[in-house]
Amino acid sequence: MLPPEIQNFAEIFSKLPAIGPRMATRLAFYIASLPETDRKKISHALENLGNLDRCPRCFFIKSSKEKFCGFCADSRRNPFLIAVVEKETDVFSIEKAGGFGGMYCVIGELDRRNPLGETQKKRLQKLKDTVSGWPEKNKGEIIVALSPNTFGDFVSELIKQGLKNTGVNVTRIGRGIPTGGEVEFADEETLRNSLENRK
Amino acid sequence: MLPPEIQNFAEIFSKLPAIGPRMATRLAFYIASLPETDRKKISHALENLGNLDRCPRCFFIKSSKEKFCGFCADSRRNPFLIAVVEKETDVFSIEKAGGFGGMYCVIGELDRRNPLGETQKKRLQKLKDTVSGWPEKNKGEIIVALSPNTFGDFVSELIKQGLKNTGVNVTRIGRGIPTGGEVEFADEETLRNSLENRK
Repeated sequence: MLPPEIQNFAEIFSKLPAIGPRMATRLAFYIASLPETDRKKISHALENLGNLDRCPRCFFIKSSKEKFCGFCADSRRNPFLIAVVEKETDVFSIEKAGGFGGMYCVIGELDRRNPLGETQKKRLQKLKDTVSGWPEKNKGEIIVALSPNTFGDFVSELIKQGLKNTGVNVTRIGRGIPTGGEVEFADEETLRNSLENRK
Repeated sequence: MLPPEIQNFAEIFSKLPAIGPRMATRLAFYIASLPETDRKKISHALENLGNLDRCPRCFFIKSSKEKFCGFCADSRRNPFLIAVVEKETDVFSIEKAGGFGGMYCVIGELDRRNPLGETQKKRLQKLKDTVSGWPEKNKGEIIVALSPNTFGDFVSELIKQGLKNTGVNVTRIGRGIPTGGEVEFADEETLRNSLENRK
């Protein structure tokens, strides 16, 4: 009984993360009831997401028209301190916690069936190249900020091994975050502690 | 540090119902990472919502190219049984519960400061006109299916009063739904009971 426009919208939006079929239908009704100008705003916001790509240095998201992302372009940040994170939202959480001030390497969402896939390998190779170009490698540091669960520990160990011959210090975020938890959902205090207590 | 495209999207989407700023940001990252074709699909689904308007008889949503909504156009449904509901999602819930088979009159979201606003008055007048055209008014029935809370009861009473001179039977959904609850979130069994136990 629903018009195909609503059905189609609900079907497509219910595939997005954290949006179920019921919520997608409610959204469809809501957006359909908005004035034309508001709907246009939503459309534009959506289309503008097509103007994004990844920073060639740290793989964080950036506007296509910029050469580097906001972090890599910021000369006040410490280029010899790099946090390896899984996803963009982890960068976001660490920045919100404050107290970091280094750079990032976003390796991309991990797949349990293939701990270091093509994307991860390519991005970690770039990290290795960056570190190799540092004048005093032993003064730099890579903090592996993957979620501290069994799988994250395993991947962190692989990353540590991969960076061994560069001579750089590789640390792991402190166990301030409860084991089994997720970086993304940690409170700011815990996240700040985990950056301080790295080992 | 976030590109303006992400910030803009998050700001606009966090105004939609049930989407907070955090979820809007996650959605932005997710959609930005999708292939062009998937993003286009989402855009089209969104734009197509502009091709909708309301059924001139029951005010349920419909494609602009259709004359009536799916319910009003369906000759198998009982045109002498009409459920008055607040919103589209209530129609959806009643349909999912099954066992109804009549028509609807969607009066639009109620405002507590103005129980029967312009929209409601216009739509209820249309309902009155429809009922006035029925050959045997006393065989028809209007079920007022507003949420059974104090405000809903009050508005239902106003609607009953307004339909008095038409001679039609006006009933209220049964108290299967706990007082203070919402039609939209009732389980199917409770909703079905409430349709049966109308009084």
